[in-house]
Amino acid sequence: MKKYTVEFIGTFFLVLGIVVAVAKAGALAPLAIGSILMVMVYAGGPISGAHYNPAVTIAAWLRGVCEVKDIPGYIIAQLIGASLAALIANFMLGTEPGSGLEVDLWSAMLAEFLGTFALVFVILNVATSKKSEGNSYFGLAIGFTVTGLAFTLGGISGGAFNPAVAIGVSVAGLFSWANLWIYLTASIIAGVLAAYVYKFVDSEE
Amino acid sequence: MKKYTVEFIGTFFLVLGIVVAVAKAGALAPLAIGSILMVMVYAGGPISGAHYNPAVTIAAWLRGVCEVKDIPGYIIAQLIGASLAALIANFMLGTEPGSGLEVDLWSAMLAEFLGTFALVFVILNVATSKKSEGNSYFGLAIGFTVTGLAFTLGGISGGAFNPAVAIGVSVAGLFSWANLWIYLTASIIAGVLAAYVYKFVDSEE
Amino acid sequence: MKKYTVEFIGTFFLVLGIVVAVAKAGALAPLAIGSILMVMVYAGGPISGAHYNPAVTIAAWLRGVCEVKDIPGYIIAQLIGASLAALIANFMLGTEPGSGLEVDLWSAMLAEFLGTFALVFVILNVATSKKSEGNSYFGLAIGFTVTGLAFTLGGISGGAFNPAVAIGVSVAGLFSWANLWIYLTASIIAGVLAAYVYKFVDSEE
Amino acid sequence: MKKYTVEFIGTFFLVLGIVVAVAKAGALAPLAIGSILMVMVYAGGPISGAHYNPAVTIAAWLRGVCEVKDIPGYIIAQLIGASLAALIANFMLGTEPGSGLEVDLWSAMLAEFLGTFALVFVILNVATSKKSEGNSYFGLAIGFTVTGLAFTLGGISGGAFNPAVAIGVSVAGLFSWANLWIYLTASIIAGVLAAYVYKFVDSEE
Repeated sequence: MKKYTVEFIGTFFLVLGIVVAVAKAGALAPLAIGSILMVMVYAGGPISGAHYNPAVTIAAWLRGVCEVKDIPGYIIAQLIGASLAALIANFMLGTEPGSGLEVDLWSAMLAEFLGTFALVFVILNVATSKKSEGNSYFGLAIGFTVTGLAFTLGGISGGAFNPAVAIGVSVAGLFSWANLWIYLTASIIAGVLAAYVYKFVDSEE
Repeated sequence: MKKYTVEFIGTFFLVLGIVVAVAKAGALAPLAIGSILMVMVYAGGPISGAHYNPAVTIAAWLRGVCEVKDIPGYIIAQLIGASLAALIANFMLGTEPGSGLEVDLWSAMLAEFLGTFALVFVILNVATSKKSEGNSYFGLAIGFTVTGLAFTLGGISGGAFNPAVAIGVSVAGLFSWANLWIYLTASIIAGVLAAYVYKFVDSEE
Repeated sequence: MKKYTVEFIGTFFLVLGIVVAVAKAGALAPLAIGSILMVMVYAGGPISGAHYNPAVTIAAWLRGVCEVKDIPGYIIAQLIGASLAALIANFMLGTEPGSGLEVDLWSAMLAEFLGTFALVFVILNVATSKKSEGNSYFGLAIGFTVTGLAFTLGGISGGAFNPAVAIGVSVAGLFSWANLWIYLTASIIAGVLAAYVYKFVDSEE
Repeated sequence: MKKYTVEFIGTFFLVLGIVVAVAKAGALAPLAIGSILMVMVYAGGPISGAHYNPAVTIAAWLRGVCEVKDIPGYIIAQLIGASLAALIANFMLGTEPGSGLEVDLWSAMLAEFLGTFALVFVILNVATSKKSEGNSYFGLAIGFTVTGLAFTLGGISGGAFNPAVAIGVSVAGLFSWANLWIYLTASIIAGVLAAYVYKFVDSEE
């Protein structure tokens, strides 16, 4: 329950940050969002691994640092945290869910695929590799991957790189439910691929 | 006296930064404020624990890393630092105290509660847990929690997450004295709750 | 092949980030670009050294931390990653290559020379010196060198400081092919000079 | 000579960054400047201590971490680096020195005093204290002190917090020579005071 509580808290604040940032932080939203992810990764990393992202949970399992029995609990905690955060954010903002961002299918698919690949590749290298054990930069690297990607690929796809975020942001009305499959498909495939590429490049351990 | 001097200096520069940032840093104020908090946490952390926030002092006591006899000295040093900074900032800026930010009661209460919860939860995990002892990221995590929260929840409540900041910013005329109870109530309840949640999730130590 | 794969991935995301940031991140592009470089350096550093830059590969060889037999593989991987990223970025953005940035010859030459000197000097000190072995800041220092330089010298020359970036950005149509020699000449001379200056100032090891 | 070379390089890039940032980075100049200082501190810290600031050199001597025989060499290297950078920056920018920033005497004096106090206090705690030996955050803390202060107090005084920067920026025509005494007086007094306050609060070592 401790791990799931941490996954709930981290994903809750990540999605709360995203929904409020879109309304309040303007062009600086990616800095706000990456900062919140960074600090939640530093806070929860030593307890749950700080996935806050079902694509990361799956990749962590493929890489051998998450037990299969933990997968359902992690993903359920992430999805509840994300959805609850979206509802509370909209309550505080006094906004009604809109009709969601329009995106170009293939560009958005590619952007979400590339972004999630980069995110999972960075996470596995900085937070699970023996070569970087005990480092103090894992949260900075993970948070600012999202900052860098949201400033760039976010302009193409909206920038979820995370199935829980895609669902939470859809609950908030920022993404269109009709596009949810794009985010889920691209991020899960990218997470799996990143796990295998990571296992190849860091295979000497 | 050394600890109280450090708490005075840190809270002084935090509130000075907030009041001047609101006047001079525009949309980038949260980055300025979080940076100042970060560097003051790095400077003072090894001496006083770098609370700079009565809600943190109370949570640190509940968590067992601050002695009860130190609480009054810490909080008095924080409040003097915050108030003096507000007066000096207004002198340098040549501004008279205004009538203060208007906020929606329940949204502001919720934003301050959630923001302070996140801040105290991060602080206890990165600065007091055995699991992260000796890390180099505690100041970055704490400072950028405020950056992330100020960019987002700050747009709803003004973003104090700290009773000393709420008082200092009221002295400067940026918050309304009539709303002070919102900030004090929400931040102290959130700090206490965060301490108990932290003790649950990190309880193996 | 592991090292070359990492050099390909890192340079790919660096150039992808640059081309998309120019289109989507406005004045904040240097923050996006430096963040992406930072996280790719943290991810790949322990495997390949995370050069992502032929001028760095040459300087690393002069400094004795890259074998001569690795130079061709590193540079080819960097150039393929950079060029492919430019093509994919333009596809996602739906833009056609433009005619490229106009620059003042001597100012641009000087800006690229000084910027690459600073970048390589920082890299050799933070990532190859015995004096800073095992530090957790190497990626932050390298990424934010580019952030700082791109915000400043980038306004004069466009801000490549990297032959692979100069070529990738030319493929994307952001730089003019007629100016490519400026970027290549300035960055390679600066990289070599920085290696010798580094060897002088850090020579006690 | 190695130490002086590093002080020259670091101060050169700091002032180059400042002068070009004012022309090219707009409201984000403090982020650019703090980033450049941060990376130069990380690069040069293990060699020269990375002062890049006569007020820091004096404070480091008072604190016992800089030998008196090194003071002239450090300060001369800093002043030459700063002045040369100003000339090269203006050449690249194609600008003529202007008549300099107008400031309110007492507000500017106070802002420079408080800013330099904060900067030197942070530096002595993060880079010279036994309590924080071997940390990876010293450059981040020092660089982002300047970022935070430049976003805030910089709007009042221009934000030098450093006699070498004040002189370099005056050479570039951004500060008025008639005001130079304000910057020199405030920063040197603040540096000396910060050294004594530091020695008091960290005196258990």
